[in-house]
Amino acid sequence: MAQKPSIPKGTRDFSPKEVAKRNYIFSVIKSQFELYGYQPIETPSFENSETLMGKYGEEGDRLIFKILNSGDFLEAIDEHHLIEKNTKKITSKISEKALRYDLTVPFARYVVQHQNELEFPFKRYQMQPVWRADRPQKGRFREFYQCDADVVGSTSLLQEIELIQLYDAVFSKLKLKNVTIKLNNRKILSGIAQIIGAQDKLIDFTVALDKLDKIGVEGVKKELIEKGFSQESLSKMEVLFTLSGSNNDKLEKLTSLLSDNEEGKKGLEEVKFIVNSFHSTPLLTATLEIDITLARGLNYYTGAIFEVVAQDVQMGSIGGGGRYDDLTGIFGLKNMSGVGISFGLDRIYLVLEELKLFPDATIKSCNILFFNTQQLVPEIVFPVLEKLRQKSISCEYYPDEVKIDKQFKYAEKKGISFIIKSINENKFEIKNITTGELNHFTLEEVMSLF
Amino acid sequence: MAQKPSIPKGTRDFSPKEVAKRNYIFSVIKSQFELYGYQPIETPSFENSETLMGKYGEEGDRLIFKILNSGDFLEAIDEHHLIEKNTKKITSKISEKALRYDLTVPFARYVVQHQNELEFPFKRYQMQPVWRADRPQKGRFREFYQCDADVVGSTSLLQEIELIQLYDAVFSKLKLKNVTIKLNNRKILSGIAQIIGAQDKLIDFTVALDKLDKIGVEGVKKELIEKGFSQESLSKMEVLFTLSGSNNDKLEKLTSLLSDNEEGKKGLEEVKFIVNSFHSTPLLTATLEIDITLARGLNYYTGAIFEVVAQDVQMGSIGGGGRYDDLTGIFGLKNMSGVGISFGLDRIYLVLEELKLFPDATIKSCNILFFNTQQLVPEIVFPVLEKLRQKSISCEYYPDEVKIDKQFKYAEKKGISFIIKSINENKFEIKNITTGELNHFTLEEVMSLF
Repeated sequence: MAQKPSIPKGTRDFSPKEVAKRNYIFSVIKSQFELYGYQPIETPSFENSETLMGKYGEEGDRLIFKILNSGDFLEAIDEHHLIEKNTKKITSKISEKALRYDLTVPFARYVVQHQNELEFPFKRYQMQPVWRADRPQKGRFREFYQCDADVVGSTSLLQEIELIQLYDAVFSKLKLKNVTIKLNNRKILSGIAQIIGAQDKLIDFTVALDKLDKIGVEGVKKELIEKGFSQESLSKMEVLFTLSGSNNDKLEKLTSLLSDNEEGKKGLEEVKFIVNSFHSTPLLTATLEIDITLARGLNYYTGAIFEVVAQDVQMGSIGGGGRYDDLTGIFGLKNMSGVGISFGLDRIYLVLEELKLFPDATIKSCNILFFNTQQLVPEIVFPVLEKLRQKSISCEYYPDEVKIDKQFKYAEKKGISFIIKSINENKFEIKNITTGELNHFTLEEVMSLF
Repeated sequence: MAQKPSIPKGTRDFSPKEVAKRNYIFSVIKSQFELYGYQPIETPSFENSETLMGKYGEEGDRLIFKILNSGDFLEAIDEHHLIEKNTKKITSKISEKALRYDLTVPFARYVVQHQNELEFPFKRYQMQPVWRADRPQKGRFREFYQCDADVVGSTSLLQEIELIQLYDAVFSKLKLKNVTIKLNNRKILSGIAQIIGAQDKLIDFTVALDKLDKIGVEGVKKELIEKGFSQESLSKMEVLFTLSGSNNDKLEKLTSLLSDNEEGKKGLEEVKFIVNSFHSTPLLTATLEIDITLARGLNYYTGAIFEVVAQDVQMGSIGGGGRYDDLTGIFGLKNMSGVGISFGLDRIYLVLEELKLFPDATIKSCNILFFNTQQLVPEIVFPVLEKLRQKSISCEYYPDEVKIDKQFKYAEKKGISFIIKSINENKFEIKNITTGELNHFTLEEVMSLF
């Protein structure tokens, strides 16, 4: 029966210290979400498969964890399907539920399902785990948390501005410097694709452009040519490769490039409006940077695209989001524009850890340990414990009458602040473990320590 | 593409109001756990199947949600297994992971896996969802939360006492009156079974006894006779059917019944020690009641057995637990006695809801809505929003310049406390939505409202 226990790859156990640190990040994000008027919802960990399948592209479908039907799931399946071993066909017959893959699609489902109970614009936040059958690597897990804030039911660009402020507010509170919030706009990408005559190759174009950082200008050009782009179109987009300087410099160059393209101009207008708004209310610590190579989530974004990077750590993006004009359309509710951002809790954790940015006080240790001795017996200690806990002072009573050394070591290892070793004429002998200071205090004096 | 969206049966969406109420319960339980010196851990939502399978009995195995392997899961399976449609055999081949069924087995796995990092006795709490493919009904869901506190590494009965106090503390804080904490002991049940000569029928005996409430004395006797119990053994256990009165009355009767049985006497000693300890420190509001018919979790409990019932609502148990002397043994770590309790968050929610015990203030509404008007433009409002949020005052800016009526209705429906309608000479026209009171305040005066 005995087996060496382990957990599935890409998943993690969290120790008390890790839980405390994670909760610190959660609480910072949550309190900022609430300061901005977002309200929490929660959705089930698994959804009906048809809710999720087909929403994240072919790759996404593959990475969704499917749950086996209960009971005798093979009974109704034709033998010849089984012998064929048509995995895809059989999957849909033996599995009707799937684990949440992100928070956006369940949110869209929620909005459509509960549309009559909601007041629009509906601002919700959601902090729950998601699961992906991805290959685990640094900063990529099979179970991880997303913390999302979205607002649906308004096309106002003020919301893009507020979401950028929200990113800035959270990372400022977390004391994470050198955060860059990258901004792009799907309409600009479409406009450029039109200008270079590649409307039908928008994905190829953006996928290649996205690699500029990694493979350089020549690499991107090579990839585009392989995908069938002409030399002429490459020279038309030359400006993209040299787009540098301030946001204003970039806007200027893009304005001249897109002067004849309606969609591109619309996208530029949007970016300008957002960027300019920060002249009157500058960001606290983050930097907003126009990045025309940013193309994430192109599947459903229609306007602004965001991505957040911590410059001091190699980690990929720690957040992202954008505007989607028709997300709820897939569930039958049209004309419900939305915009949202996501925080990647697990990567933010790794970044804060690497930069040693967790405050010392995240771990709430127990305040007092009462030793278990011949003198400190239950009849004496239990009533005292109750009085302390009523005053919100956390305390423990060592459960066994063992050697003092062992009890002391327990207090020390667990990071307990004070130990009470004996009682004499209603005065407790109390020791501060950190300083070693020893006092004889009444219960009232003990309470006044906290 | 459009589909009418729904969620799997037995699962639920939670609205902002529901999340706030659930968080209220979580926070009460959590703060009491911490006052008692328990520390949080978290384990993955899914475990390797072999960690869970076989730990909850045959029924449990059936109710565990299994996750389909990724990729081409049929490839390696023999055709003749497929044609046989041997569901059980095939399940173990196409599924290697399963969703958490409770928090106790993953905790045992955690303790064994991390034994070298832990300081014993190890007191942990854990508040996470679990999943069971059970038939949904009132108070029974397929996804629900458990909140567990367990301590492993000591056999001291002081811990049973503290866990009863912890139950009492939580339900007192929740203002839930008429809570009964039922107490039994596996050793007493074993002792009785030995006395009536039914050591080998302990399960049949306890399952029948457990139904005393529902089917009465005659029903229990009938069931026992069907299971092969003799008239003689029935008359020996007669005292169990008439066991009433105070805990002391019950202890007295049981003492005479079990006077010749070592194991039974040991169990009685334990129960007496626990019950007597509450003479010096009485419970705050709950009632501790010896209930010899209580047999839950007999699979692994070895000493104390707890169950909590709210007398004012028909709901089944809202908590339970007990001592297990060898839980970690299944993972290869012997001699690690543990005792723990669980709170059923979802049932506690239903009980508080039915008794209207949620405090009004659970829902944290947004403090201020700024109207979007020709006068209240972004350049004016954004800097003010930022100042307010820096002071932890939550505020929103309506994103679109639409009719005032619509903006007002939004504030009202969302439960926002104040609206700001205009600004004149640095004074904001601010209205208290509840009282209707209208004032003209400077920003400092607005801030002083909170």
